[in-house]
Amino acid sequence: MSRKNKESEHNLPTLADVATRAGVSTATVSRCLNSPGQVQQGTRDRVMAAVQDLGYSPNFGARALAARRTKTIGAIIPTMENAIFARAIQAFQEELHKSGVTLLVSSSSYRQDVEEDQIRTLVARGADGLLLIGHDRSPAIYQFLANRGVPVLICWAYDPSVARLSIGFDNRRAMAGLAAEVLALGHRNIGIISAEFEGNDRARARVSGVQDAMRAQGLDPTTADLIETPYSIENGANALREMMQNSPRPSAVICGNDVLAVGAVQMARALGLAVPGDVSITGFDDIELARVVDPPLTTVHVPHRDMGRQAARLLVDMVAGHPARDSVLLETNLCLRGTLGPPPGSVADS
Amino acid sequence: MSRKNKESEHNLPTLADVATRAGVSTATVSRCLNSPGQVQQGTRDRVMAAVQDLGYSPNFGARALAARRTKTIGAIIPTMENAIFARAIQAFQEELHKSGVTLLVSSSSYRQDVEEDQIRTLVARGADGLLLIGHDRSPAIYQFLANRGVPVLICWAYDPSVARLSIGFDNRRAMAGLAAEVLALGHRNIGIISAEFEGNDRARARVSGVQDAMRAQGLDPTTADLIETPYSIENGANALREMMQNSPRPSAVICGNDVLAVGAVQMARALGLAVPGDVSITGFDDIELARVVDPPLTTVHVPHRDMGRQAARLLVDMVAGHPARDSVLLETNLCLRGTLGPPPGSVADS
Repeated sequence: MSRKNKESEHNLPTLADVATRAGVSTATVSRCLNSPGQVQQGTRDRVMAAVQDLGYSPNFGARALAARRTKTIGAIIPTMENAIFARAIQAFQEELHKSGVTLLVSSSSYRQDVEEDQIRTLVARGADGLLLIGHDRSPAIYQFLANRGVPVLICWAYDPSVARLSIGFDNRRAMAGLAAEVLALGHRNIGIISAEFEGNDRARARVSGVQDAMRAQGLDPTTADLIETPYSIENGANALREMMQNSPRPSAVICGNDVLAVGAVQMARALGLAVPGDVSITGFDDIELARVVDPPLTTVHVPHRDMGRQAARLLVDMVAGHPARDSVLLETNLCLRGTLGPPPGSVADS
Repeated sequence: MSRKNKESEHNLPTLADVATRAGVSTATVSRCLNSPGQVQQGTRDRVMAAVQDLGYSPNFGARALAARRTKTIGAIIPTMENAIFARAIQAFQEELHKSGVTLLVSSSSYRQDVEEDQIRTLVARGADGLLLIGHDRSPAIYQFLANRGVPVLICWAYDPSVARLSIGFDNRRAMAGLAAEVLALGHRNIGIISAEFEGNDRARARVSGVQDAMRAQGLDPTTADLIETPYSIENGANALREMMQNSPRPSAVICGNDVLAVGAVQMARALGLAVPGDVSITGFDDIELARVVDPPLTTVHVPHRDMGRQAARLLVDMVAGHPARDSVLLETNLCLRGTLGPPPGSVADS
């Protein structure tokens, strides 16, 4: 014990060591680690080389980490509204609680600049690890987290092509499966209401899934109406109204999530359109709303609770220095409910 | 500047000063401030007297506070599920963001022991101030917060009878207003599905409101069927089913919130009962679910966004040392929608 302490005192490089080796001030080293965007590329490269050469790990080196463990984990979700992330985060928290870990959550309003501030705040407040949604963010903020030695688990989007650990599902494949069901019923005029693509890899993947299914049927994906709009019931309603003014109008509207789809169903009914008689509408997520709306939504069931629980166990292991080797892929299921039927005028209908 | 620093160095009492005056160790003083429940009453009284005599303010004295401001505020909500607290917290966060303040949220699963851990964690992680829901918590944790000099704003429950600042609405009066509408239609067999009373002053106040309205009509409030159950759609459904087995069965079921009411509406329909023809059902909150369910819920609209925004401004002022003098009472509105009608067999009906 005392030998270990001595070792860490004597062997761990300091901020001053890095500064000396890089030939800059300690303030510049700090800036490189905390706000790399504010430092010129050349200086930054020199400092980061020194950090690597010396094996410097600011504040939170392996040994220091063990000593400074705060039993606090942070999560940043895009929004607290509409319960899109609520069930998973609640399960994540309950599982962390079993390990005596307290969860602190921030919500970024789907804004990358806000999320970066929140990441820095959670790290500054001593979070042992972070749960983040999706992979889209600047290399600088990933570098910041790596420099600080803060383990990060990505949730909601499985991506085996990147080295960082993730737990999630295949948004593209799941949506392709749902879209294939829609097309199999004979729908050819397809509308897509998606969340905005910027900073949202899940939204982009889901639209790609619809396009995959169209191509598989020999259809041209560019013929689909596509509206991008932030997730809200009202925006889903407005997008549906806009789409229904097109000619030919879509006989099936595939929505990027349940919140948009619920708005679309309500607007269709307000316009006097039967769902699914005049227009089929589908969602994604299977949140509570999906079963409350009438008719209940055809959607993709995401195992939110299971994802939250498993994410908690993975992140606790990562903080303890035992990360899993592989990312975790969860399965989704199609929920075929009342809002999907054949297109109007189809054989089954006439 | 240097004069001020000197002043604070020379004049502010230290932990050691408190220990000397109380005749205990500094460890005991710390324990009194951080875990008062673990210290014998006599010792605690002596230490707290010394704290008061010396004007000691641990870590976060007025001057220290200004210097240590972290631009972080904490909020603890009972749950993230079902979006009950989501809209207010999202507005709270967006308003804090305008002041450059980052919000960290925890959810306590409606458990007081969990909430106490979370309060201590947020304070330990340097939260400048806290938003808490309702007034129910142990005197010890309020004392802990007072000792640490962390400003606390209570939300969701206005209570002018206590000194601590709150922003909210009158849960009891709001529910009494809704219940009066129900009784005015002629309902006499009343069911009440409430959240569990323990640790939830809002739930108790709402049931008291129903009882007030019954008494005002000369009815005996103890004749109402009352089921206490945690907030969830499923629990609301189960409670409705149980109630419908009573004889006489309620012609109107007043639910403690929209989540329970949505479950009750769905179960009524599953049982083949018309809403409101066979049974009227009401909610409280006016969350998104209330308008999505069919028929849409009669409920009490709570100004969640306005409450969140105003709470943010109040708490930022409190942290800056300029707290408002009075608690803030917000108005609620009745939303008379499709789930409330006259009782079966009434004049209007026959």
